[in-house]
Amino acid sequence: MASKRPATGEGAFEGPEHAELPPCAGGLGPLRLKCEGSFFVGMGARTVDAPYYGRTGLAGPGEISVGQMYVHYRCPEVATRPPIVLIHGSNHTGATFETTPDGREGWATLFVRLGHPVYVVDQVGRGRSGFDPTPLNEAIDQRDLSLTHKAPLYARAGAWVNFRFGPRYPEPFPNTQFPLDHLDHYMAQLVPNAEELAAGRSGEATIDALVSLLERVGPAVLITHSQAGLYGLEVARRCRDGVLALVSIEGGCAPIDEATATAMREIPFLSLWGDNSSGAAGANGDARRNDAQNLAFTLAAAGGDATHNVLPDHGVFGNTHMLMMDRNNSDLADFLSAWIVRAT
Amino acid sequence: MASKRPATGEGAFEGPEHAELPPCAGGLGPLRLKCEGSFFVGMGARTVDAPYYGRTGLAGPGEISVGQMYVHYRCPEVATRPPIVLIHGSNHTGATFETTPDGREGWATLFVRLGHPVYVVDQVGRGRSGFDPTPLNEAIDQRDLSLTHKAPLYARAGAWVNFRFGPRYPEPFPNTQFPLDHLDHYMAQLVPNAEELAAGRSGEATIDALVSLLERVGPAVLITHSQAGLYGLEVARRCRDGVLALVSIEGGCAPIDEATATAMREIPFLSLWGDNSSGAAGANGDARRNDAQNLAFTLAAAGGDATHNVLPDHGVFGNTHMLMMDRNNSDLADFLSAWIVRAT
Repeated sequence: MASKRPATGEGAFEGPEHAELPPCAGGLGPLRLKCEGSFFVGMGARTVDAPYYGRTGLAGPGEISVGQMYVHYRCPEVATRPPIVLIHGSNHTGATFETTPDGREGWATLFVRLGHPVYVVDQVGRGRSGFDPTPLNEAIDQRDLSLTHKAPLYARAGAWVNFRFGPRYPEPFPNTQFPLDHLDHYMAQLVPNAEELAAGRSGEATIDALVSLLERVGPAVLITHSQAGLYGLEVARRCRDGVLALVSIEGGCAPIDEATATAMREIPFLSLWGDNSSGAAGANGDARRNDAQNLAFTLAAAGGDATHNVLPDHGVFGNTHMLMMDRNNSDLADFLSAWIVRAT
Repeated sequence: MASKRPATGEGAFEGPEHAELPPCAGGLGPLRLKCEGSFFVGMGARTVDAPYYGRTGLAGPGEISVGQMYVHYRCPEVATRPPIVLIHGSNHTGATFETTPDGREGWATLFVRLGHPVYVVDQVGRGRSGFDPTPLNEAIDQRDLSLTHKAPLYARAGAWVNFRFGPRYPEPFPNTQFPLDHLDHYMAQLVPNAEELAAGRSGEATIDALVSLLERVGPAVLITHSQAGLYGLEVARRCRDGVLALVSIEGGCAPIDEATATAMREIPFLSLWGDNSSGAAGANGDARRNDAQNLAFTLAAAGGDATHNVLPDHGVFGNTHMLMMDRNNSDLADFLSAWIVRAT
């Protein structure tokens, strides 16, 4: 035992021994929380037949839980700024906002340090929210492949282009702020969109769960990323009094009509985009950026506080689609927090 | 805006407004951390063909990340006790050890308050560790259902019996310590065992990743639950100098021979069982409990510090298979921490 027996007494353990994790090297100092933990919202039930779950003994028949969304909350000892809900994009989980691939603090704790209570969710069908396996299990039991769909997951080259690490794999943009020397740690956080096993629109369950979250915890600022941009807009439509402000980080969006814009004009809106999107291949190029700009214009024309901010236009260069883990993620958190304080 | 605009200035936000979450009502006081965050271990790569990932644009072809394990760490400001790795069981994720279904603190933070650095993992194929969707996607593309397997998930009645909330659904054990009035919040945390989509033994990738974790962070105490009991034994076999002690909470185990017992005798071992397992239906009854008792006996016979502890024999009644979220979970954390300090 001696060789591995730890010393005892105060300070015997200085924390994890992985030097590549600056937070544990004391980089930003202690994190003091009023509370930290998790809960679920949006739970529903679906009745299944025994054979689908025979592999876990007495698991069936009966009701499985479906539609739930995992919510991880961190509250600063003294909260001085509005609560924030962080909502990740396609093929990701809430891990998007935790420690960066190269071991720096993510927005989840950086916003807490700035005085915000922070809620990080896993979209329904991903991560700790689980997923409904019934389409797959029924397809196997009924020998009918049409009952299920694929669970898409990004491969390295596709992620490289779509998330704008570079123009083509493995060539990086010369000014990239993404920690590409830890790309393996980034790819590890991608998960299949298992909600797509089921037919119909994905995202509806996440939108419903986000509305339930706001009803439970009270008004909050929504910071959405990529795919979740559309969800944030729908939540704002359904739950206007629950959304203090809406931030769309390179977010998907669709045109809204004047009536919708007028109804939403009291919700401050900020669209934030990184660098190298002009003429970029993949999903996060000119078309999506122009949609975001048009949405901000429509909201502003209706009298709203709406801004479309492309970082290079303000002297900030090299940000990728994954701004929250780029090397300047702390500066961006400061910028967003200041905007939130002003706008709300 | 006025109706939902928050007040500003210190103390404007007292944290989440969900009264059912005592931690945020200040139940145990502030949580002061040296650091908190996440990382991944065990990453591998698998090459896939484009069609499997066509639904996410440029997602394929190329390498997807497989075999990774999500690790969430929390380190107390001053760590005075050995690091602990918490490893959940079948159909669960690390959420098992977070806030309980009725909103009390879970072992993840309770052990931190006792002075332990704590690592909570999601088994490979579950939660934020993601899963390899290739078996399903190939089955669909090649129209061959034999390429994939089911993803089992507990339904309510099966969980009720197997996790010993009561003898039969919906009848509870009279003395149960489980917060059954929040059963929906418990069922919500169950996830499919998506690693079972692939043929072959599940658990191997999690065992490999746990060995990688110990190599990265240094020696730690493993606290395994249920299915993970077998994994903890295998990790201890492969990585004896990395395991300070092994705790098996109603853990699965197989007989070990005298040579293995001799090799493992320097690793203190504790098997902990709850109540109402005698004659219980389902997977967590006499057979599994007797296996655990026999394992402890074999280790002790080889000269090891090995104990099999059935709580009712010590005057603690009503614990279920989910001891970490039973009403006395804080007392059990105190007991385990004291055992760890003594044993290591």
